[in-house]
Amino acid sequence: MYAALDIGGTKIAGALIDDAGVILTRAELPTPARESVSRLTGTVDAVIDRLAAHPAWGTVRGMGIASAGPVDTAHGTVSPVNIPAWRAFPLVECVRAHPMLFDGIDPVLIGDAVAVAAAEQWRGAAQGVANALCMVVSTGVGGGYVLNGKLHPGPSGNAGHVGHISVAMDGPPCACGARGCVESYASGTAIARHAVQAGWVPREGEAATAAAVAAAARVGDARALAAYDRSARALAAAIAGSATLLEIEVAVIGGGVAQAGDVLFTPLRRHLHSFAVLDFARDVTVRPAALARDAGLVGAAAAARVRMTEQGSVYVSG
Amino acid sequence: MYAALDIGGTKIAGALIDDAGVILTRAELPTPARESVSRLTGTVDAVIDRLAAHPAWGTVRGMGIASAGPVDTAHGTVSPVNIPAWRAFPLVECVRAHPMLFDGIDPVLIGDAVAVAAAEQWRGAAQGVANALCMVVSTGVGGGYVLNGKLHPGPSGNAGHVGHISVAMDGPPCACGARGCVESYASGTAIARHAVQAGWVPREGEAATAAAVAAAARVGDARALAAYDRSARALAAAIAGSATLLEIEVAVIGGGVAQAGDVLFTPLRRHLHSFAVLDFARDVTVRPAALARDAGLVGAAAAARVRMTEQGSVYVSG
Repeated sequence: MYAALDIGGTKIAGALIDDAGVILTRAELPTPARESVSRLTGTVDAVIDRLAAHPAWGTVRGMGIASAGPVDTAHGTVSPVNIPAWRAFPLVECVRAHPMLFDGIDPVLIGDAVAVAAAEQWRGAAQGVANALCMVVSTGVGGGYVLNGKLHPGPSGNAGHVGHISVAMDGPPCACGARGCVESYASGTAIARHAVQAGWVPREGEAATAAAVAAAARVGDARALAAYDRSARALAAAIAGSATLLEIEVAVIGGGVAQAGDVLFTPLRRHLHSFAVLDFARDVTVRPAALARDAGLVGAAAAARVRMTEQGSVYVSG
Repeated sequence: MYAALDIGGTKIAGALIDDAGVILTRAELPTPARESVSRLTGTVDAVIDRLAAHPAWGTVRGMGIASAGPVDTAHGTVSPVNIPAWRAFPLVECVRAHPMLFDGIDPVLIGDAVAVAAAEQWRGAAQGVANALCMVVSTGVGGGYVLNGKLHPGPSGNAGHVGHISVAMDGPPCACGARGCVESYASGTAIARHAVQAGWVPREGEAATAAAVAAAARVGDARALAAYDRSARALAAAIAGSATLLEIEVAVIGGGVAQAGDVLFTPLRRHLHSFAVLDFARDVTVRPAALARDAGLVGAAAAARVRMTEQGSVYVSG
């Protein structure tokens, strides 16, 4: 049995997860994202309290923590963009100090997008794939790698930050400070903004979201289709780049924008064909993510499972 | 002692290299690049003959072969762009069949740019660096990765093909079929072409090469400086991408274009600062390559050395 935490800007979730990746129990509280360190810590503790109240708690062998980034897994700290009070916050130490964490449980920290990759490799669309990029395309764009059959979080746990590579070196400035980042074309926010700029208007009472743009695209709205095409093209350039640099065989796409289905995947596959052209790269395929809402928790458990089996290396086997 | 071969479109080189990476003897013949398979095979055999005539041949423990790509290390075959007669040519089998290759020497194949990375990690500018991208910027642009302290050739030996990732998804078509590839901005060929298009003219009797453009840049020619700046910007976007995706700490730049020195490295460092902006990526540095002409041979020996010590995994330790 593994305990898992998934810490985001909206909610702090916890679960007990068995060795087959099945969730036995869940606990969830809203993140007091704009409040103090002690309110935040108290919320983490309260989620752990709920898990510890479950009869299976006594059989927990390991614990994983997925957190919104940036993270620093080498130091066990987190600085989530949307939780301003936590900057280089020692999250691992904080969790380890919980009175219900008996000796021998050494929580392992993992970035939330890397956790999604761990989850998709363990129980999802990247099972059995030796080299994969798993992306979360939502309000932002994140990702994580599986290379040579192992999760590849990088030295500080931030590898796979595919949203902030440039696919247009002369493109518009990105909030991160660089230019032409994938996120500035491909995210849900970018899709909605681009559709609105092109003259698309949401229906009365409806918000201008990527989901609303997808609905308009499905009935043939050219501006909505163009916004998804633009997103798909940036994703294709980035995925082709990973195939060319790392011989990834599969790109798994999850997150809210992936819910658009064919509206996204049809142009994505077409553009991918035009960017991934070298012999060893051209067979890269895209797949929708298999795990949705629970990917962070399952990925945190996967990281703990690996820590248990391969002490010292973050390694996920099937 | 290791035997090493380095097979390119211009020359086929061989060497005996000791366990400290020192070259004891060299042999070299021009590549009959436009000729038949048997002429090519004969030239490889003749280079091996010369090495085998050296008294140290009897102490050879392993053999590495660096080859122009694409390669397929999983199948031991090569299809060098500039050697048309070799398509999926079984180079490893061909070398293994040489009568002087005594039992127990199992040649290991490695792509030439990956060999450069292996060499720079073993004896050059990437020594002691756990995560590095080593690039060769010449008539083309290639590269290889060191990740987690190990060479990362990818499943078919082609990982690190940084010349053919797109840094301008709306950019000009590249010979490979994609758009806005790094090579189409950054290679020596691209630098010379861009300078000429901007109105730069080589001196009487001088060819329009990247080296000539560098000489003009050094005395302040604005068109020459702009051509190097454009190359540097594409390289910076690509290096920043690798820092963001893989947390590389160092990018080593070799090849003819790197000989331009500050003409390339000064704008490269400036642009890198503007593209590598995330906390975990911004400290990436660029270094000139330490090994020049012999990098392919030394890298081939490095690959053989690893095969000897860690049978089954291509792993290079210092």
